[in-house]
Amino acid sequence: MSAGPVFISEAESAALVDDELALAAAREAFLATATGSTFPVVIGHSSSPHNRFTLKSGSAGDLVGVKVGSFWPDNAELPRHSSTIVLLDPATGRLSAVVEAAAANAYRTAAADALAVDTLARADSRTLTVIGTGHQALHEVRAVSRVRPIGRVLVVGRRPDAARAFAAEVTSLTGLPAAPADARTGVAAADVLVTATTAREPLFEASWVAPGTHISAMGADGPGKQELPVELHDRASLFCDLPEQSCAIGEFQHFPSAVPVALGAVLAGAADGRTSREDVTVFDSSGFALQDLTLAAALLRRRATSPGEPA
Amino acid sequence: MSAGPVFISEAESAALVDDELALAAAREAFLATATGSTFPVVIGHSSSPHNRFTLKSGSAGDLVGVKVGSFWPDNAELPRHSSTIVLLDPATGRLSAVVEAAAANAYRTAAADALAVDTLARADSRTLTVIGTGHQALHEVRAVSRVRPIGRVLVVGRRPDAARAFAAEVTSLTGLPAAPADARTGVAAADVLVTATTAREPLFEASWVAPGTHISAMGADGPGKQELPVELHDRASLFCDLPEQSCAIGEFQHFPSAVPVALGAVLAGAADGRTSREDVTVFDSSGFALQDLTLAAALLRRRATSPGEPA
Repeated sequence: MSAGPVFISEAESAALVDDELALAAAREAFLATATGSTFPVVIGHSSSPHNRFTLKSGSAGDLVGVKVGSFWPDNAELPRHSSTIVLLDPATGRLSAVVEAAAANAYRTAAADALAVDTLARADSRTLTVIGTGHQALHEVRAVSRVRPIGRVLVVGRRPDAARAFAAEVTSLTGLPAAPADARTGVAAADVLVTATTAREPLFEASWVAPGTHISAMGADGPGKQELPVELHDRASLFCDLPEQSCAIGEFQHFPSAVPVALGAVLAGAADGRTSREDVTVFDSSGFALQDLTLAAALLRRRATSPGEPA
Repeated sequence: MSAGPVFISEAESAALVDDELALAAAREAFLATATGSTFPVVIGHSSSPHNRFTLKSGSAGDLVGVKVGSFWPDNAELPRHSSTIVLLDPATGRLSAVVEAAAANAYRTAAADALAVDTLARADSRTLTVIGTGHQALHEVRAVSRVRPIGRVLVVGRRPDAARAFAAEVTSLTGLPAAPADARTGVAAADVLVTATTAREPLFEASWVAPGTHISAMGADGPGKQELPVELHDRASLFCDLPEQSCAIGEFQHFPSAVPVALGAVLAGAADGRTSREDVTVFDSSGFALQDLTLAAALLRRRATSPGEPA
C-alpha cells in the first residue's frame, strides 16, 4: 500500500462490472460465509431522516471492509440508491481501496439470486417469471437467464403498462420472448420465480406454485417487508444467505419456525440443495457485506488487468 | 458532486491539520450533539480477530457519514491506529469525500479534551499534569497548553525512563518546563489533569485531587476500561461528550448512578459548567462520529483555500 489507496469511480466500476464478474464474486462470497465474519448492520440517516444509509461490514480471508449503501428517495436525476465499498489493507488496517459501486450493486444483488438459481433450480428450467418491474428486476432477469436455458419470461406487475414496458425491455435486452401475466398465471407457469419488489405483504398464494419451482426472493431486507406467503413453509425447502439475518430482517422473519439452510453450505457440499424434480426451493436474499467485499476485489482485479489501466 | 468525490490522502491531511483547526471542528461537533444524530457503533475485526475496526456514523446539519477507525496492534513501522472518514453528499446520498486521517485523528481527540479544559477549567490554570506517555498524550499536552496559560507540565508514567523522555519531548515541542512526577504529587499539584492511557483500573485516588482541579479523561472507550476512581462521583461535577455512550462504554460505566452533563449543553448555554473556583470538574471523552465529520469538513475547507490546491 505504499502507493496509497486505489479509488474506482462510479463511471469506472459501471464500465468494469458485468454479470460474469458479479456471479463469480457472489460465489466467492457465499463460500466465504462458512469461515468469514459479518458484523451488526447499522441503519442511519441524514439530517432529513427519510434519507437513509446502511453500513454492512465484514471480513473473510484477506478481505476486510464496509459497504456504505444509501437510499435518498427524493433523488430525481440521480439513482436513489448509491453504494460505496471501503476496503482496508488486511496487513496494516489502513485504507486500501474505495469503490463507488451504485451500478455494480445491482449486478451484485442479481448475482446472488442467480447463484441460488444455478445451485437450486432444475437444470431444465425454461420459464422465468419475475414479479416487479423496476431497475433491479431487469438485472435479475438478465442474471438468471445466463444460468438456465430460459426460453420465455413472464412479467407480473401492479400496473399493466409498466409490465408491458418491462416485457419489451426484457426482449430488447436479452432477446427472449417476454409477456405480461397476472400473478396466478405467472406463478403457476414458472420454473424459476424471482420476486424483486418492496412489498410488505405476500405477492401470491402458495397453492399457485407448481411442484419443482425454484423461487429467489430479493425484496425483503428490513422489518415488515414481505414477498412470500408463509404457507410455503410447509411446501418448500428453505435457503438463504445468512440464516440469522434472514430470520430477523429477511423473508423468514414471517416464517415463525423456519430453519433455512445457508446457500454457502450447499455450495460447499455441506448441506443438501434440491433433492428431487418435485421439490419447491426458496432462496431469500437479505444481503451481506462479504458480497460487497468480493465484488470490490473483483473490480480491482479486473481494473488491474484492463488494457490501458495501471497494473 | 458532478466533479466526483474528493480524496484527501494521509500525507495531505497530516499537512493540513493543526490544533486550531481541530479545536474549531471539536467545538462545532459538540454544539451539534444537541440536534445531530449518532448511530450504534460497530466493532468488527479482520480475519485475524485481534486486528479490530470500529464504525462510528452520524449526521448533523449538512454532514452525514462514517469514520472507519482501525487498530492493528502488530503494526511495527506504520502507526497501529488508522482512520478513514467517508462523507456523503447530503443532497444526493452519493460519496462526497474520503479523508484518510490517522494523524488528524490524534488532533481531533486531543481537541475534545482541550475544548473541555477551555470550557470547564479555571482561567488561571497553570499546572498541567498528564498521566500517560504515549503519542496521544503528547497531543493532549500541546492542545491543552493552547487554551490555558500553562506554566509547567508534570508527567506521570509507569516507567521512569518513559516519563523522563516524554517530559523532554514536551519541552522540545512546547517550550514549557516539564518534569516526571509520581502519581500522588502530580495529581495533587494539577490545575488541569489529563489521563491518556489504556488503563483498566483507577490511576489515582480521589482524595489526592485538590479543590478546583479540572480532569479530562480520554482513555476509556470500551467495556472494562477505566482511568478514574469512582469516589470522584461524590467530589466532582461530571461532564462528557455523549451521556448515554459515556455511561455504557466510557469512564462513567464504572460510576453506578452518574448523570453526566453533555459538554455540548454547557457550550450552548443550556447547562451549567464550573460554578466556583473550588469545583472539581471531570470530563470523559469516549468519542463520537460528529467529531470526525466536522474534522473532515474542516480539512476539506482548508484544502479548498490552500495556495496551490484546487478550489
